[in-house]
Amino acid sequence: MESQQLGRTPYFYGPEGALVQVDFALEAVNRGSTTIGIKTKDIAILASQLKPTRALIDPAEKIYPIDDHLGATGAGYIGDVLKLIQELRLQAQKHRLTFDSPLDVKTASEELSSYLHQYTIYAVRPLGASSIIAGSDPTGVQMYQVDQSGTYFKGSGFAIGAGSERSLEVIQREYNPNMSLEDLVSLGTKAIKSVTQDESQIEIGVVSKSTSRFAKLTTPIQTLQ
Amino acid sequence: MESQQLGRTPYFYGPEGALVQVDFALEAVNRGSTTIGIKTKDIAILASQLKPTRALIDPAEKIYPIDDHLGATGAGYIGDVLKLIQELRLQAQKHRLTFDSPLDVKTASEELSSYLHQYTIYAVRPLGASSIIAGSDPTGVQMYQVDQSGTYFKGSGFAIGAGSERSLEVIQREYNPNMSLEDLVSLGTKAIKSVTQDESQIEIGVVSKSTSRFAKLTTPIQTLQ
Amino acid sequence: MESQQLGRTPYFYGPEGALVQVDFALEAVNRGSTTIGIKTKDIAILASQLKPTRALIDPAEKIYPIDDHLGATGAGYIGDVLKLIQELRLQAQKHRLTFDSPLDVKTASEELSSYLHQYTIYAVRPLGASSIIAGSDPTGVQMYQVDQSGTYFKGSGFAIGAGSERSLEVIQREYNPNMSLEDLVSLGTKAIKSVTQDESQIEIGVVSKSTSRFAKLTTPIQTLQ
Amino acid sequence: MESQQLGRTPYFYGPEGALVQVDFALEAVNRGSTTIGIKTKDIAILASQLKPTRALIDPAEKIYPIDDHLGATGAGYIGDVLKLIQELRLQAQKHRLTFDSPLDVKTASEELSSYLHQYTIYAVRPLGASSIIAGSDPTGVQMYQVDQSGTYFKGSGFAIGAGSERSLEVIQREYNPNMSLEDLVSLGTKAIKSVTQDESQIEIGVVSKSTSRFAKLTTPIQTLQ
Amino acid sequence: MESQQLGRTPYFYGPEGALVQVDFALEAVNRGSTTIGIKTKDIAILASQLKPTRALIDPAEKIYPIDDHLGATGAGYIGDVLKLIQELRLQAQKHRLTFDSPLDVKTASEELSSYLHQYTIYAVRPLGASSIIAGSDPTGVQMYQVDQSGTYFKGSGFAIGAGSERSLEVIQREYNPNMSLEDLVSLGTKAIKSVTQDESQIEIGVVSKSTSRFAKLTTPIQTLQ
Amino acid sequence: MESQQLGRTPYFYGPEGALVQVDFALEAVNRGSTTIGIKTKDIAILASQLKPTRALIDPAEKIYPIDDHLGATGAGYIGDVLKLIQELRLQAQKHRLTFDSPLDVKTASEELSSYLHQYTIYAVRPLGASSIIAGSDPTGVQMYQVDQSGTYFKGSGFAIGAGSERSLEVIQREYNPNMSLEDLVSLGTKAIKSVTQDESQIEIGVVSKSTSRFAKLTTPIQTLQ
Amino acid sequence: MESQQLGRTPYFYGPEGALVQVDFALEAVNRGSTTIGIKTKDIAILASQLKPTRALIDPAEKIYPIDDHLGATGAGYIGDVLKLIQELRLQAQKHRLTFDSPLDVKTASEELSSYLHQYTIYAVRPLGASSIIAGSDPTGVQMYQVDQSGTYFKGSGFAIGAGSERSLEVIQREYNPNMSLEDLVSLGTKAIKSVTQDESQIEIGVVSKSTSRFAKLTTPIQTLQ
Repeated sequence: MESQQLGRTPYFYGPEGALVQVDFALEAVNRGSTTIGIKTKDIAILASQLKPTRALIDPAEKIYPIDDHLGATGAGYIGDVLKLIQELRLQAQKHRLTFDSPLDVKTASEELSSYLHQYTIYAVRPLGASSIIAGSDPTGVQMYQVDQSGTYFKGSGFAIGAGSERSLEVIQREYNPNMSLEDLVSLGTKAIKSVTQDESQIEIGVVSKSTSRFAKLTTPIQTLQ
Repeated sequence: MESQQLGRTPYFYGPEGALVQVDFALEAVNRGSTTIGIKTKDIAILASQLKPTRALIDPAEKIYPIDDHLGATGAGYIGDVLKLIQELRLQAQKHRLTFDSPLDVKTASEELSSYLHQYTIYAVRPLGASSIIAGSDPTGVQMYQVDQSGTYFKGSGFAIGAGSERSLEVIQREYNPNMSLEDLVSLGTKAIKSVTQDESQIEIGVVSKSTSRFAKLTTPIQTLQ
Repeated sequence: MESQQLGRTPYFYGPEGALVQVDFALEAVNRGSTTIGIKTKDIAILASQLKPTRALIDPAEKIYPIDDHLGATGAGYIGDVLKLIQELRLQAQKHRLTFDSPLDVKTASEELSSYLHQYTIYAVRPLGASSIIAGSDPTGVQMYQVDQSGTYFKGSGFAIGAGSERSLEVIQREYNPNMSLEDLVSLGTKAIKSVTQDESQIEIGVVSKSTSRFAKLTTPIQTLQ
Repeated sequence: MESQQLGRTPYFYGPEGALVQVDFALEAVNRGSTTIGIKTKDIAILASQLKPTRALIDPAEKIYPIDDHLGATGAGYIGDVLKLIQELRLQAQKHRLTFDSPLDVKTASEELSSYLHQYTIYAVRPLGASSIIAGSDPTGVQMYQVDQSGTYFKGSGFAIGAGSERSLEVIQREYNPNMSLEDLVSLGTKAIKSVTQDESQIEIGVVSKSTSRFAKLTTPIQTLQ
Repeated sequence: MESQQLGRTPYFYGPEGALVQVDFALEAVNRGSTTIGIKTKDIAILASQLKPTRALIDPAEKIYPIDDHLGATGAGYIGDVLKLIQELRLQAQKHRLTFDSPLDVKTASEELSSYLHQYTIYAVRPLGASSIIAGSDPTGVQMYQVDQSGTYFKGSGFAIGAGSERSLEVIQREYNPNMSLEDLVSLGTKAIKSVTQDESQIEIGVVSKSTSRFAKLTTPIQTLQ
Repeated sequence: MESQQLGRTPYFYGPEGALVQVDFALEAVNRGSTTIGIKTKDIAILASQLKPTRALIDPAEKIYPIDDHLGATGAGYIGDVLKLIQELRLQAQKHRLTFDSPLDVKTASEELSSYLHQYTIYAVRPLGASSIIAGSDPTGVQMYQVDQSGTYFKGSGFAIGAGSERSLEVIQREYNPNMSLEDLVSLGTKAIKSVTQDESQIEIGVVSKSTSRFAKLTTPIQTLQ
Repeated sequence: MESQQLGRTPYFYGPEGALVQVDFALEAVNRGSTTIGIKTKDIAILASQLKPTRALIDPAEKIYPIDDHLGATGAGYIGDVLKLIQELRLQAQKHRLTFDSPLDVKTASEELSSYLHQYTIYAVRPLGASSIIAGSDPTGVQMYQVDQSGTYFKGSGFAIGAGSERSLEVIQREYNPNMSLEDLVSLGTKAIKSVTQDESQIEIGVVSKSTSRFAKLTTPIQTLQ
């Protein structure tokens, strides 16, 4: 009996061990809005290009407050990003109800990682979205990147979405651990502008150790010079 | 062992990260009735072409009251549009029962977005329908578009269904934030007529800040000159 | 890795957005008995060809009383039509038990529409049957067509099944809102005869505003001249 | 992307609207024992060829008492026929327990129809068996044929299984509504003999208005001349 | 759209109405041990070849007591035969507990038939085993064959497994309804020896009306001359 | 319609009635450690080659105590063998809790057989492991082999895993029902050495009627001469 | 009927008995970080290369404390490794709650083995991660490797991930059961450096009999010379 007559099984790995659908989902992330996160010891900003839309349509929100002290942003399919944000908000509320304390940034990232990972094991669709989470907790101002595969990283400079390689280079080259909020906003804007050719807005969220509050900057920044 | 002998898994993404069935569902939306929404600060209208039917058959309703202060319209498979409307009405009722207050327009859009998104994750059929939701709530008169993928946008001018590109251009070109109800109806009618060649009726729904009530205009408008 | 090696997902849409199985189910409907509905303000009739059977076999019933004030007919796979009728009767009984009032014609059609729509979303068989529902309720005598996809229409003249285009033309050409019951029966019979070449019986059901009762005409009408 | 790369869905309809597996199941029925039913106003008989078996093996029973007043026969896969009989007996018992009255013949047929229809909707095997049901109830002596698709017919003369066309012609040609039990048995035997070439037994069941009892004739009839 | 692009459904029937997997399962049965059953009015024997095994391995049991008055044997996959025996024993115990009486042979066969039939309807493996059941109950000494498809037969002489055609011919040729136990054992042994070329043991079980007990003969019979 | 367009069903049997996946699982067993069991009336030993590992890695255990009086060994995928051992231990504990007596060897084998058989019926993976079970119970010292298909055998000499044919021949040739424990160990070691070319350890377990205890020999035996 | 027309079943084994997806998952493990474990009678270390990341991104943690006395490391998909760690921590907590004592190293390994094995039986994704577990329990300092297939080994020197063969050779060549902690760290570092060409950090965890505590070394070791 020839092997092609043997039947067919649900499979997940290609012959080299690659997770086929998870890798395809990354392609969706890589076509998303250019999105970055930068932090110093006391301040973190999240910034994301608001993709240009038709004249009378507001661009989709890209910086999402999760809890008083916690915010997130994402790149990839909008519906999938919204799903992640919904999950993060749910976890933050559950944590407050269960432990009567705010969800720390690491636990938030682990919960999101675990949530995304489930979608890679069963015959459902792995979500096509990565995210950056920033917040202030008793350990200080923290920032994590959580990928569509459920992998997460802690760090001071992240970029996801279209042209993430190039914008991360900008951040690495000009990063300085003593930057002020103004410096961070300026660097984040520059990193995104290095990728986006045409005029587009940038939405920015900030959390600082002094206030322990995550908030969006009220006016999005124009990339047009 | 050759890779074509490896078995087969349910998959959702094509190699470039596109969601294959969701994109096909968009094709169904793009063949639907030309449907638009326009709003100023105080008034929003929803308008949709009533596809011509046989002489003794009433065209299918296209403007749906959801709650006193809230209405919606849609384009795509009629059965799928009806399903969305049913879901919106259910959410509006649940909100009143749970919170004793009307469902605000943003929450309605988020609920619908989340509902549509579920159908993109599992091995079921993604719905082939987009919708525009308009209503009056404590934040004013608001309008959202929710797509078949679960993505939503806030805005002052939307068009979905057949020829949506062309009718959106008409709206953008002639839109003026100070338009009266008469102006809005006139512009919406013109935007739809720019696409539909032959005689067909247009059904229109209106919600204004002053009344906080969503209602259909009693007489559909004839596109025939 | 070649795309044909990517695996296979359950799919529902063809590349142009068509619902493949639902369209095939329509083919089954289009081979069913020629079936019509006509109404004036005060009277509605449903009529369906009884397909000729062997000498000693009674033709299958085609006009189904649903409740005192409500009746239906259908075209397509007999087993599927019977399933719809069963569902309509169940809904009518549930409505009486829950609200202590007869099910209105619009709600009956919406319930059936929603029931049929479910079969288009999951990996089950979409039903291969369309139906026409007529009844008398506080809004008057009403008539709806519900298609195999879950779409429904309100109107005064419908035709489904084999040759429905031709019989609908007959109805449209000769329809007159002032027709008597005799006129309606005569027109319905003519519309069906225009399609069926050979001798066959026609079963007819009637509901009028004055009696608020749906009943079959006692003697089926012979199409043979 | 080529359409053959789109994935695969469970499907039920062929492009012309035919139910592929249900039609194949009919092929199984058409290879079953020649089986007939004939009735007058007061008497019904069911008769089925007992397929010749090896010398020491009893042929499988083909006439099944369902309740005192009700019997059935079937053609197709023996295991499937047995399943139907089991279902009918269950329904008859449930009816007596629930309503304290015998199951009428029409309801029995509708229940069986509905049972068979379920197997055509989901990804299970449609049963490969048709049946004829006869009984005496307050409406008189009644007889129904229920097909593998869930379709049922009422009538005075039915034939299913191998050569059913030919045996139904014999019945139609010689049927007379005034036939006695002896005439019915003679005609039923002749109809089956017209198909079966070699010697085989015929099992016969009878129900009459006078006794309201379904019973098998004690001696099967030999087809050999 | 080409038909090969339509998708794929679970299917059970081939185009001629054959049950593909059930027919393949029969191939497994036909490669099993040669197994027979013979009965007169008062005595039944079951006999099965014990397939030769390696020197230090006991051949698998082939005659299975089910209850005091009931025994069974089988041919096909050993694991599947064991499953059937387990099911029969369970039914016998349940019957005693529920009705306080021994399970009659016909009901045992019907229960097993129904159990096997379930495996032919769903997307699971039809069992690859047939069996012969013999016992003494108030109706006398009875014997049934139950096939892998769920079909069952009553009779006085059965053969299943490898060469069943040839051994059944031996039984039919020499069967005599007045045979003593010794005659039956002798005939059963001869029927099996007609198929098995090399030396192998035969296990035999007996049930008689006088004792109403099923028991294995203590010494298996050698086929070697 | 061509048969390759008919759809696809889960299938288990090849056209000759072979269980495709179960046969492939046997290939995994046949590549496992050479493993044997030998018993006399009063003593049973289980012995298995410990596959050579890297210098600092202990070879995986191959002789598993199940209960005081019961032990087992296995060949095939280590994970699958461990699963079987877990199941046997669970059954032994359940038996003690339910019946307050040790699990007899035959019942242990039947339970394991039934457990393995389940994996051959549904669309899951049949386990790739065979086992030999030995113990002392009121019927004496008993030994069974249970195969990956759920088939089991009782005997005095078994061999499974790589080269099982050759080692079983050694056992059969030199077996003597009066062998002492030393003889059994010597024969078992020789049977395994006949297959394994290079130096490897052999783990041995013993159960005897006098002690009714299953225990591993403390020092594994070196195959190197 | 040709065999390629027979239908398709989920399958797990290739024709030679290989578990296709489990083998592919191993490829993912073999591309993971070089990770080792070495132990003497009283001390065990786990060490893993921290894969170099972008400048502002912290490398992912590779040494995971499980409980006071127990730690683990892993190689393969990060999301899968995290899942294993989560499972180990859960088991450790459950053990403390149920038995009021710390989980011993062997039971931890068996639980993880059983957990991983489940993913190889059903139509889900086998996890692409192997792990090394070390801890101190009443039996001393113990170390186990648990593979992606659910197989586990006990030992004094393990290597998994990229270049595991080469680093294991280094360990085997220079291992000495009397090594001090400093020797172990030095050897582990050398074994990893033998594989990793470029500068990368190594994270190290230690558990010793004297303290019965598992702890990470505070400063990762630089591989750069």
